[in-house]
Amino acid sequence: MPKVNFLPDNVTVEVEKGENLLRTAMQGEVHLSATCGGSGTCGKCRVVLEKGKLDSLDTELLTDEEKKKGYYLACLCKVVEDVQVRVPIETRRGERAVLDRLREAAAFGVMLTTEDIHALVDFKVDPLIKKVYVEVEEPTLDNNADDLSRLLVALKKDGYEELTVDYDALKDLADELREKDFKVTVSILTLDHNKTVTRIEAGDTTKNNLALAYDIGTTTLYAEVIDLDTGEILSFASDYNPQISFGEDVISRIVFSAKGDGLKKLKKAVIDDFNKLTKEALEKAGRKSEEISIISAAGNTTMAHLFLGISPKNIRKEPYIPTVTHWPAVKSSKIGLKAPDGSRTFVVPGRASYVGGDITAGILASGMYKTDKLTLYIDIGTNGEIALGNKDWLMAVSCSAGPAFEGGT
Amino acid sequence: MPKVNFLPDNVTVEVEKGENLLRTAMQGEVHLSATCGGSGTCGKCRVVLEKGKLDSLDTELLTDEEKKKGYYLACLCKVVEDVQVRVPIETRRGERAVLDRLREAAAFGVMLTTEDIHALVDFKVDPLIKKVYVEVEEPTLDNNADDLSRLLVALKKDGYEELTVDYDALKDLADELREKDFKVTVSILTLDHNKTVTRIEAGDTTKNNLALAYDIGTTTLYAEVIDLDTGEILSFASDYNPQISFGEDVISRIVFSAKGDGLKKLKKAVIDDFNKLTKEALEKAGRKSEEISIISAAGNTTMAHLFLGISPKNIRKEPYIPTVTHWPAVKSSKIGLKAPDGSRTFVVPGRASYVGGDITAGILASGMYKTDKLTLYIDIGTNGEIALGNKDWLMAVSCSAGPAFEGGT
Repeated sequence: MPKVNFLPDNVTVEVEKGENLLRTAMQGEVHLSATCGGSGTCGKCRVVLEKGKLDSLDTELLTDEEKKKGYYLACLCKVVEDVQVRVPIETRRGERAVLDRLREAAAFGVMLTTEDIHALVDFKVDPLIKKVYVEVEEPTLDNNADDLSRLLVALKKDGYEELTVDYDALKDLADELREKDFKVTVSILTLDHNKTVTRIEAGDTTKNNLALAYDIGTTTLYAEVIDLDTGEILSFASDYNPQISFGEDVISRIVFSAKGDGLKKLKKAVIDDFNKLTKEALEKAGRKSEEISIISAAGNTTMAHLFLGISPKNIRKEPYIPTVTHWPAVKSSKIGLKAPDGSRTFVVPGRASYVGGDITAGILASGMYKTDKLTLYIDIGTNGEIALGNKDWLMAVSCSAGPAFEGGT
Repeated sequence: MPKVNFLPDNVTVEVEKGENLLRTAMQGEVHLSATCGGSGTCGKCRVVLEKGKLDSLDTELLTDEEKKKGYYLACLCKVVEDVQVRVPIETRRGERAVLDRLREAAAFGVMLTTEDIHALVDFKVDPLIKKVYVEVEEPTLDNNADDLSRLLVALKKDGYEELTVDYDALKDLADELREKDFKVTVSILTLDHNKTVTRIEAGDTTKNNLALAYDIGTTTLYAEVIDLDTGEILSFASDYNPQISFGEDVISRIVFSAKGDGLKKLKKAVIDDFNKLTKEALEKAGRKSEEISIISAAGNTTMAHLFLGISPKNIRKEPYIPTVTHWPAVKSSKIGLKAPDGSRTFVVPGRASYVGGDITAGILASGMYKTDKLTLYIDIGTNGEIALGNKDWLMAVSCSAGPAFEGGT
């Protein structure tokens, strides 16, 4: 089987003879720009052949001079022998500068920081998962109830009753209890009037309680670390959404997701990148991934489907039906996020196929839903949404705005 | 590294020089009897050396004649070079005849079948997971709500409200709905006053609704297939508990579970065997594993811990504390059981370290808890329990009975 060596990353991928070069790059996680999703029309997946030969279709999107220099469009090439190709800077996703929101805010002096907005809308930290410190009675021959029963008795004294206990929380219960003399911290999730114990840790870890806020933009991914003990925003990190390699707008990504294991690939790309951003942001904040209790993610309806690995294919076909708009909570590890077993990921609910959780999150954070004043909220991303209304009524429309506003082409 | 070839199974295992022969056998899943858990005192793990040499400690548990014939105790041998050993019939777990309960019942004419007991105690089939067939409204441009919302509207018409939806149930929702013209079967779990959608299948599958009942005996494992649509018991299968290789009684297994990855090995042995028994019983009944909705397992407190992979180590040390006695429901696949994502496994709750879910299950099935008559219930297994009482009061004691009653030594 022929091998393709990608420069400058020096990634080598072995594929069946005749495999498409763009797909080969994806396989090796070498992310090339490909606005059109590989249909040969956008001309962005340019590579330069350094060694060997490629079997390519002709294209008018490269000039004769470029062709002489060895330029090819990866999506139009078949791999027929061992080759070495260089990915030029304009094709590489990672080289483009990602918008630094806080820097931009300062530069223009007109945008509000998240803290400013929280102050404006009288926002209080009231997380869905709370950490509760309890001292459990030590077992004796007279009080020889099982560890869980004694823990539940201690929690009842603090007013926590009718608790469901998650299996993952039990796995190391005996050791956690005995590590710090039967003093433990219990994470309790309150949802739909149910209370669930999701995690039990030795000692008092109530101060180690972090949330991550993810913005799943079509073009940009953004992760923020929030201290749930103080409500303070500690750090952030952002990057281009690596799904750009599979198509630059939601429609081309929906098309890609419906082919073969396209959905799996799109999900993996975005989850892997959020894991990378989380690591980066946690390092900046000097905090650890063990401290994560909650991850909250907002994105348009298609992005939310792809993030959770649920097919969005019916969103682009009349009558344009998403699978879900109100997402259930999911164990973070279940969707591949690197966070403790006891943590949960919540995806902000949307309203329709093209009015998603990103605009819902904006409406909530702006506080427009509780004011008398007629308010216009504009979210200009790769997909643009506008919401108009106040505490009595709200309406929203959306359109395709293109990636121009997020530092794209 | 030296290789050990085990006959008659012809399993070859490569190990570090100096590795213990009993551990080598476990590694290759060649299950030898070892009542004492490998401490050299029971003399059961006898093997015959056919080729090569073993470095063995001396033992009085083999006669001079046996030693001349090439007999060794696997637990006392180190592997120092390539060897071939034969596992004689008396050492092999699988060769011993497992008690066939129904056959025994017929032979003695005194034991009741499960159906007889159900009739006696007026037992009704009322499973925790119910399958509900619904016809969902097809989407149009005027009714373009997401798939899940339209499904929940249809369920509400049938009286099912305030449902939580499990992430696993959503994964293929769009396809399941469209496969049979928006007619689907929904599995609904009712537990602790919460209702959860655990599974959505295309078409009407309400008749394909199976439960498995597992008896986790210290010596014997038993699996029964029950049709939840009719309440009928369809088939069963049983086998020796492969944990016997790691010690024949609960104490030696608790000791083994506390060493290295002992807990993991004990869990894997019992789960793998239940998967094998389930396959066998389903084949006998002509049914499929996709039809499994519920698995219910009962065993003594230590067996329940090992089945769920939760350490039982404090059960044997004063003041004898189990981690849990009231087990939460767990996704079957989470503990390694081969059953649909939407299925759940319930472990019958116990009362104390040595009064477990096996006796609870017996008390429930016998109906003694709802009669006026003073009743004595005796469960003679490797661990023996006795419960005395009626509808007003119940008391239980337990003792170590040894495996004699289950066809053991």
